[in-house]
Amino acid sequence: MASDIDIARAAKLKPIQDIAARIGVPDDALIPYGRTKAKISGEFLKSLEHRPDGKLILVTAINPTPAGEGKTTTTVGLGDGLNRIGRKAVICLREPSLGPCFGMKGGAAGGGKAQVVPMEDINLHFTGDFHAITSAHNLLSALIENHIYWGNELEIDQRRVVWRRVMDMNDRALRQIVCSLGGVSNGFPREGGFDITVASEIMAILCLATDLTDLQQRLGDIIVAYRRDRTAVTARDLQADGAMTVLLKEAIQPNLVQTLENNPAFIHGGPFANIAHGCNSVMATRSALKLADYVVTEAGFGADLGAEKFFDIKCRKAGLHPDAAVIVATVRALKMNGGVAKEDLGAENVQAVKNGCVNLGRHIENIKQFGVPAIVAINHFTADTGAEVEAVKEFCAGLGVEAVLASHWAEGSEGTVELAEKVAVLAESGMAQFAPLYEDGLSLLGKIEAIAKRIYRADDVLADNSVRDQLRRWEADGFGHLPVCMAKTQYSFSTDPSRLGAPNGHSVPVREVRLSAGAGFVVAICGEIMTMPGLPRVPSANHIKLNDQGMIEGLF
Amino acid sequence: MASDIDIARAAKLKPIQDIAARIGVPDDALIPYGRTKAKISGEFLKSLEHRPDGKLILVTAINPTPAGEGKTTTTVGLGDGLNRIGRKAVICLREPSLGPCFGMKGGAAGGGKAQVVPMEDINLHFTGDFHAITSAHNLLSALIENHIYWGNELEIDQRRVVWRRVMDMNDRALRQIVCSLGGVSNGFPREGGFDITVASEIMAILCLATDLTDLQQRLGDIIVAYRRDRTAVTARDLQADGAMTVLLKEAIQPNLVQTLENNPAFIHGGPFANIAHGCNSVMATRSALKLADYVVTEAGFGADLGAEKFFDIKCRKAGLHPDAAVIVATVRALKMNGGVAKEDLGAENVQAVKNGCVNLGRHIENIKQFGVPAIVAINHFTADTGAEVEAVKEFCAGLGVEAVLASHWAEGSEGTVELAEKVAVLAESGMAQFAPLYEDGLSLLGKIEAIAKRIYRADDVLADNSVRDQLRRWEADGFGHLPVCMAKTQYSFSTDPSRLGAPNGHSVPVREVRLSAGAGFVVAICGEIMTMPGLPRVPSANHIKLNDQGMIEGLF
Repeated sequence: MASDIDIARAAKLKPIQDIAARIGVPDDALIPYGRTKAKISGEFLKSLEHRPDGKLILVTAINPTPAGEGKTTTTVGLGDGLNRIGRKAVICLREPSLGPCFGMKGGAAGGGKAQVVPMEDINLHFTGDFHAITSAHNLLSALIENHIYWGNELEIDQRRVVWRRVMDMNDRALRQIVCSLGGVSNGFPREGGFDITVASEIMAILCLATDLTDLQQRLGDIIVAYRRDRTAVTARDLQADGAMTVLLKEAIQPNLVQTLENNPAFIHGGPFANIAHGCNSVMATRSALKLADYVVTEAGFGADLGAEKFFDIKCRKAGLHPDAAVIVATVRALKMNGGVAKEDLGAENVQAVKNGCVNLGRHIENIKQFGVPAIVAINHFTADTGAEVEAVKEFCAGLGVEAVLASHWAEGSEGTVELAEKVAVLAESGMAQFAPLYEDGLSLLGKIEAIAKRIYRADDVLADNSVRDQLRRWEADGFGHLPVCMAKTQYSFSTDPSRLGAPNGHSVPVREVRLSAGAGFVVAICGEIMTMPGLPRVPSANHIKLNDQGMIEGLF
Repeated sequence: MASDIDIARAAKLKPIQDIAARIGVPDDALIPYGRTKAKISGEFLKSLEHRPDGKLILVTAINPTPAGEGKTTTTVGLGDGLNRIGRKAVICLREPSLGPCFGMKGGAAGGGKAQVVPMEDINLHFTGDFHAITSAHNLLSALIENHIYWGNELEIDQRRVVWRRVMDMNDRALRQIVCSLGGVSNGFPREGGFDITVASEIMAILCLATDLTDLQQRLGDIIVAYRRDRTAVTARDLQADGAMTVLLKEAIQPNLVQTLENNPAFIHGGPFANIAHGCNSVMATRSALKLADYVVTEAGFGADLGAEKFFDIKCRKAGLHPDAAVIVATVRALKMNGGVAKEDLGAENVQAVKNGCVNLGRHIENIKQFGVPAIVAINHFTADTGAEVEAVKEFCAGLGVEAVLASHWAEGSEGTVELAEKVAVLAESGMAQFAPLYEDGLSLLGKIEAIAKRIYRADDVLADNSVRDQLRRWEADGFGHLPVCMAKTQYSFSTDPSRLGAPNGHSVPVREVRLSAGAGFVVAICGEIMTMPGLPRVPSANHIKLNDQGMIEGLF
């Protein structure tokens, strides 16, 4: 089969106006960026508020393995499948980050015959949203430094500036720096550092904001530093929220593109799935629900992290009511969960598939806890044998859940007709009785325990006094009602990435807690979390170039 | 009179397709960014190469003072004036930098009734060119660090990494940093720092490149570091040039917008006018020359820096032949050059005007040295008296140059009809016999001396042995043919910003020289040059916000 990029280039893209018209977005509500990308005006989206919502379908997955699960690909394939069977469906995806493109080969716009296009644009500057977030973030950084420089009227404790800087680039040298060196005119030397832009709280804020007013409110709420008496200094105290909002006024508007099959796709926002909630923007999802009968969206990582945060943070905050969930699994990944090494995945191994299904089974049980009916999509790889696929179906049937083979990667929507039909039935069934896992009123530690015990199946949560005290202090300061955002490894239910399958008897150690007061959640960090990646020994940047036809090589 | 922003908002903008059609750019050659901004495709521009060039008119000025000269405003006003008298004219301007918008109030898109629009967009993210430059620049930084981290095969001397990082933000804390702290996995600690994006060599490169192939060649030529034996390591050695070109492939295409009077304006690129050449892109100027009969463009700062670099760097490198120059002066600024304090500018003072004309006179003489016929535009302020204006006209007449009063700020093109008519005559006169100030073959120090003595009228150039040795080493390495780019104060012909008028008897001390091997010039630094500005005590960011109508307040 041709490469992703060759397939993408062979696609006949329609003018974005035609795609918009399919979902009733008129020309004058479109802000074009080239011919095949556009933003949809916030004003137009506001005018839709009275409309009823379509059905919301979450695509999530088993724990990721190096074998690949294809969550984005399945989201695209399902969206195309729904359109193929005559349903008006829109896909909602996250925007990929530019920086990592230059490290490991590979974009983030689906693959095979289930892609969103124009994929080069989507993977690079796209419509500039991430650049705007970088600018707004670093403007706030500059305003903090500047405030201290000119007298520090707010009495910021320079040792307690918690707002770092961001760059959309993998640059390990910037993780930890000392800035303001060089003398009086450069400020007061202090430690600082950079995260990658997707780890910015502003990214999370943009993705949870419901409109510009809410955006500015949240930006103002960001805690940038503490005083010596531990009281918080916010972006609003620095009068930074207005200018930051101005920098983000285009970025908050959802981006419309299309799939290879010319179906509409919103690609908007891309927060980290560890220290943030890992879902595309509320603006995009809400808008899509007003414009389509079915909205297919995805959440980051496996269902233990992605789906939990989608339900407990995004849906809770935005008042969304998901109607169905699709859990993506592959025979290959289940085999790895069943103990097979990556190099042995080529050989049939039905027993390993059966063993690995415990991972899938636990995710199925977890989704049920949220009151959302689930279906399993087996993302088909050519080497999968019939017996292996059958083993997965049997396992799922035992849990009362259907598993459907989907071959969108090779066949496009032709390969997801059955999946689409069954998902549509499930979403229309009225079975969904969505509720978040825990109540707002539960203590912060109680929330962490609820997730650790009920989703991760840990025996207990380990947190030393400094963490417990911090959580209590935030409760006293009025942040106790916030949901928690768990930052742990995506490879295991536990905090040990090597424990595949369905581990038991583990503890969840909370090393550190952080308050994202603007985004509106408390981050519980359980294990090493890298917020500024590095580049590999041979970065893909070495091979990325324009060829003689002016087309990009080496990016995918 | 209404404020700039009110005037800009009251303007009736035409769809950018209509503006493009006026200069024969078809719809399918346009890449729209919203409805009133577009890039023009490189492919289309290539197809114009056989066409004859229009007339090229440079707008330059006397040395800037706090009183304001209005070079951009005059460029816009003259362009509108030429269109008003029936000539097909295009304006070429630089893109403003985003960072400084949040410091001092004020954008850079003209003023009064002589503006380019949409001014908010132009002053903020615009079409993302500066973000792309920032990304390409910092990708190279990350690749340098990464190369050293993974074994340093090229044997880069970590103390001699000359490639800093950039950000489009005024952040003094980043001027000087120590990076790669925090242990083994973050690299080798070393000194570094950030410049503002407009100071990036990539900005200069983008503005001098003639096409994508030339762009990649220049990017590859960038010297990023030296080895212990002082041999240079380039971006090409790091295999960074291809990926950087990919990041810049949209940014290299000129941006089309319009004036308040719906005339076409190219706004593209914005290199610093001290450590770089301070002109809009060669791509924009060349394209405009193919599409219009008259192209009005501006150069940074006063004519001693801006015009000299326009002629000696941009025109030399791009094979441009300017047909006329307009020197902008104001009665107010001449009075300041004549010794009047800013607070006393309101009162008539003909003698001070006469005294200050020595500054104008020297610029007139300098322009003549390049073989370009000049005319003086007196940018009218309401407080100017008839006698003051007459004094300027008389002074110019004595030098054989016409001075024309222009009131575009208050009246738009109605106020530049006379100027436009006279400029058109001058440009069509065939009087221009353009030649750069010095030959390529002159030594690098000889070039610095030529500019210092013939343009700045200094007695001599002071350079210690380390500077002289460095220049000789570059000559030995094959860089002797490059032009020099002078970095000195813009406020005086001398290197002392307080010496207004036409100082004599001064020396030009060259503190440091830098090689911009990709841009293709040697920078001679004469005095303090700030490449990362700071924010003022009360930054305009504090007052920038969206108002109830969703419009930006406080930016202008």
